[in-house]
Amino acid sequence: MSKYAIGIDYGTLSARALVCEIGTGREVGEAVYEYRHAVMDERLPDGTKLKPDWALEHPDDYLEALSTCVPQAVKNAGVAKEDVIGVGIDFTACSLVPVDKNSDAMCKKYPSEPHAYVKLWKHHAAQAQANRLNEIASERGEKWLARYGGKISSEWMFPKIWQMIDEAPWLYDETDRFMEAGDWVVMQMTGNETRNSCMAGYKAIWNKREGYPSKAFLKACHPKLENVVEEKLGPVSPIGSKAGGLTPKMAELMGLMPGTAVAVSNVDAHVSLPAAGLTEKGSMLMIMGTSTCHIMLGDEERIVPGMCGVVEDGVIPGLMGYEAGQSCVGDHFNWFVDNCFPADYAEKAKALGMNAHQYLTSLCEGKKPGETGLLALDWWNGNRSVLVDVDLTGMMLGMTLTTAPEDIYRALIEATAYGTRMIINTFEENGVKVDKLYACGGISQKNPFLMQVYADVLKREIRIARSTQTPALGSAMFGAVAAGKAAGGYDRIEDAAKEMGGTLPVVYRPDTGRAEVYEKLYQEYKLLHDYFGRGANDVMKRLKDIKKAQSN
Amino acid sequence: MSKYAIGIDYGTLSARALVCEIGTGREVGEAVYEYRHAVMDERLPDGTKLKPDWALEHPDDYLEALSTCVPQAVKNAGVAKEDVIGVGIDFTACSLVPVDKNSDAMCKKYPSEPHAYVKLWKHHAAQAQANRLNEIASERGEKWLARYGGKISSEWMFPKIWQMIDEAPWLYDETDRFMEAGDWVVMQMTGNETRNSCMAGYKAIWNKREGYPSKAFLKACHPKLENVVEEKLGPVSPIGSKAGGLTPKMAELMGLMPGTAVAVSNVDAHVSLPAAGLTEKGSMLMIMGTSTCHIMLGDEERIVPGMCGVVEDGVIPGLMGYEAGQSCVGDHFNWFVDNCFPADYAEKAKALGMNAHQYLTSLCEGKKPGETGLLALDWWNGNRSVLVDVDLTGMMLGMTLTTAPEDIYRALIEATAYGTRMIINTFEENGVKVDKLYACGGISQKNPFLMQVYADVLKREIRIARSTQTPALGSAMFGAVAAGKAAGGYDRIEDAAKEMGGTLPVVYRPDTGRAEVYEKLYQEYKLLHDYFGRGANDVMKRLKDIKKAQSN
Repeated sequence: MSKYAIGIDYGTLSARALVCEIGTGREVGEAVYEYRHAVMDERLPDGTKLKPDWALEHPDDYLEALSTCVPQAVKNAGVAKEDVIGVGIDFTACSLVPVDKNSDAMCKKYPSEPHAYVKLWKHHAAQAQANRLNEIASERGEKWLARYGGKISSEWMFPKIWQMIDEAPWLYDETDRFMEAGDWVVMQMTGNETRNSCMAGYKAIWNKREGYPSKAFLKACHPKLENVVEEKLGPVSPIGSKAGGLTPKMAELMGLMPGTAVAVSNVDAHVSLPAAGLTEKGSMLMIMGTSTCHIMLGDEERIVPGMCGVVEDGVIPGLMGYEAGQSCVGDHFNWFVDNCFPADYAEKAKALGMNAHQYLTSLCEGKKPGETGLLALDWWNGNRSVLVDVDLTGMMLGMTLTTAPEDIYRALIEATAYGTRMIINTFEENGVKVDKLYACGGISQKNPFLMQVYADVLKREIRIARSTQTPALGSAMFGAVAAGKAAGGYDRIEDAAKEMGGTLPVVYRPDTGRAEVYEKLYQEYKLLHDYFGRGANDVMKRLKDIKKAQSN
Repeated sequence: MSKYAIGIDYGTLSARALVCEIGTGREVGEAVYEYRHAVMDERLPDGTKLKPDWALEHPDDYLEALSTCVPQAVKNAGVAKEDVIGVGIDFTACSLVPVDKNSDAMCKKYPSEPHAYVKLWKHHAAQAQANRLNEIASERGEKWLARYGGKISSEWMFPKIWQMIDEAPWLYDETDRFMEAGDWVVMQMTGNETRNSCMAGYKAIWNKREGYPSKAFLKACHPKLENVVEEKLGPVSPIGSKAGGLTPKMAELMGLMPGTAVAVSNVDAHVSLPAAGLTEKGSMLMIMGTSTCHIMLGDEERIVPGMCGVVEDGVIPGLMGYEAGQSCVGDHFNWFVDNCFPADYAEKAKALGMNAHQYLTSLCEGKKPGETGLLALDWWNGNRSVLVDVDLTGMMLGMTLTTAPEDIYRALIEATAYGTRMIINTFEENGVKVDKLYACGGISQKNPFLMQVYADVLKREIRIARSTQTPALGSAMFGAVAAGKAAGGYDRIEDAAKEMGGTLPVVYRPDTGRAEVYEKLYQEYKLLHDYFGRGANDVMKRLKDIKKAQSN
């Protein structure tokens, strides 16, 4: 008799529940719930207006997801609730919930106060606090700063808390604790408060050996922050731990058995590694979508310039999880299709039953590397790794009167591949060896041409995760681990990964001839990357300043 | 009773005859003839295949133009042939006709020999000879090289003649003389052989004081070239001279009176200056189309880096005519519309009854300088002035995910304005002062937004030629000068320019605020222009080399 685990992937606009067979990873049922309040970036439910750069969510939506799409997924799977032995979730982060003594979100009591809601990961209104925090950390020579590529993002936990102190100090005083939304949902399911090492490590400057930043540092930021850790945060549990069992009330709501094991929460990108079968040092997974997140496993802590973070136990217990990122990957291609896809191409694509991406890709395939004569810097949305600079912008050169749309599209694809190579090279130059390369996410399965370009540019084999829902599958695997082997699950995520995770049979292998041409082109990319990105010519920043001044 | 002059503008694919009223410049009738053989770049009329880069024309077409569109234009004008007192023509150059002792084009006798036809201005198969000629001139330190921006083009006369010596030496021996097609047509009309100072100066390295290149130089190129000047060329007549009167035979063919005065030939861009009313030093005219030609009048010979040529009597008798050029102006905008104009924009433009250029321009008007955040190098077709480098290519930077098609379009417009400023600055830095700036050609009348951008970038007033047919009008004016004042025309082109030429009432004046922002942007342009164009990073050339290698 098969046993099952459920993974719930909480995204920005919806949650997806996936029922997976333990032992095989077979995905037998799923359901999606779209958040009733979606992202609130203009008004609260009562009409209260929000300032620019705000992005809030309503915590009720997260619970509604549990009570709607979990039972639906189980029903679609046609499995008995008795055979569902574990639940795991992954969540966007940092999505910050302020809670009261009863662990209710503060917005329950203060529905007209913006600061009382969940500050979503992409809430960008705490930039002033982030800037100040970075200055102070830099002045004080805080050692942890280097672990985050030298810069803490406004999306992370401390800037968000600090913003509340600055703008609604009374609410800060009244807030009992701050929780990641993922941890809060797990607490709602189990009654137990846990904080997972992945979110704490990547988004809250927590370190397994050193803990959170020092009181002295936090006090230097703001006197009220001095005791925030002991007063309003709590102990951290490693990824792979069990948070507890479903309470009878939640079990009923979710249509599962009371006591069903629940894993501590996780982050979507990071939880994808075991879903691709990856639990060993030297493996890098590229989670490819509108942007790309690179998660890399190592066994030693190294400081790699421009990475987003390195966290012990952040991805796989016992290993260092490195994160790096490219801010704009699929977004480049979508931008091009939205803004520069000509009418006659649209007609031809339609006649062939292709979408714009498929049509452009089919035309790209007709040329050899370098044959377009184009070279681009993939910075339409700034550069995350390795330059950590949001003020960089896109660049393309080599255009002539015979440059065709597909040439530009191809140059954008190639540019993202060069950007990846820059990241991998930087890891290796700093002592983190990338032995094996994997990819998951929509693009990796939909665009074989692109994956081949990556293989040729990177001069590496690339394997693709089997599942199209790696976050939900990875979460289900952690649910199976929370259940434990005795209950039909696993004792270690490594065991779950072996049986339930894995890759497709296809392997993208570099072609020597193409790789040789791309080597030359990459050297040109590197020259321009450094010229525009490392201060020789800050024209991009100056243009941004002029743009900002002229837009007012 | 009004008198009239006819200007005939010989273009690449057609000739246009324009009947103009003397004293006012009023354009009273016109007609166009499209060349029956068009441009022959694949086969001769008898099917003989041509090699790549060849471009020939059939001289019969030029005569057919005279017998068709001239009578038609006179008829359309409704004027009596007795009132037509002068004819002038302008022609593409160098378009080279080899002729026999009877002044018949050699192709009459040898219809299967490609070298016996007219080598059109854009015949590019003499590049090897041009390269060699430049090397030899440079080695020998020929002084005249600097007058042509340091480089003789393969489009010019000596490379074309040399190509015949290399590939069809027997035909060279048999050829009695070489003539510019413009001079040949004038000879057909009048029976007199003249060579105009404009074509000789800009395209055949002729100088009023020094004549053609020395025998020693020509011999160093090829022994057969040593005596080419005395054997196969002839004396040069200044612009504004009379070539003769129409022969009775030609008068009948053209429907005009025998003896009607005919001016020596001219070049389309250069002949446009008097049509815009310009005959004084310090005036620059931008002839704006797919590319832009800048003709500048001065009273001293100065060496200006990167210009196409400086010729005494080249434009206005007694003055130095400087020529500079931007290889790609309207071509940029057309490239963008052909390759990147999205379907939804095409629909909106259609609904508004606008073409793509009008629609994009209307959207551009909604933003301020610098507000797009974009900056481009206008090198989609290389750079003529001031870098004289066909291997440079286009560049654009500043793109973000919110960059719209009209932003790119605007950046291309601005880039061409920066390119013009680079040319004007180079003139002034080298002692040729640009006092007044004028424009003519399609774009100058069709796109007021673009002209305003130019005024703001250049920080200069710009006036626009009144006529939309400046070459034909200018030719008619030279026709009126050939007739002379006694016959109802003029004795000097300056007098004709005052009465028949001129500008529209509109003046584009720079706005101080916009000019201030453009000043900053131009400095950024200059930095990138020099970085990519002057050897700091030759990435564009290396990409071209890779492209060439990969395209084979």
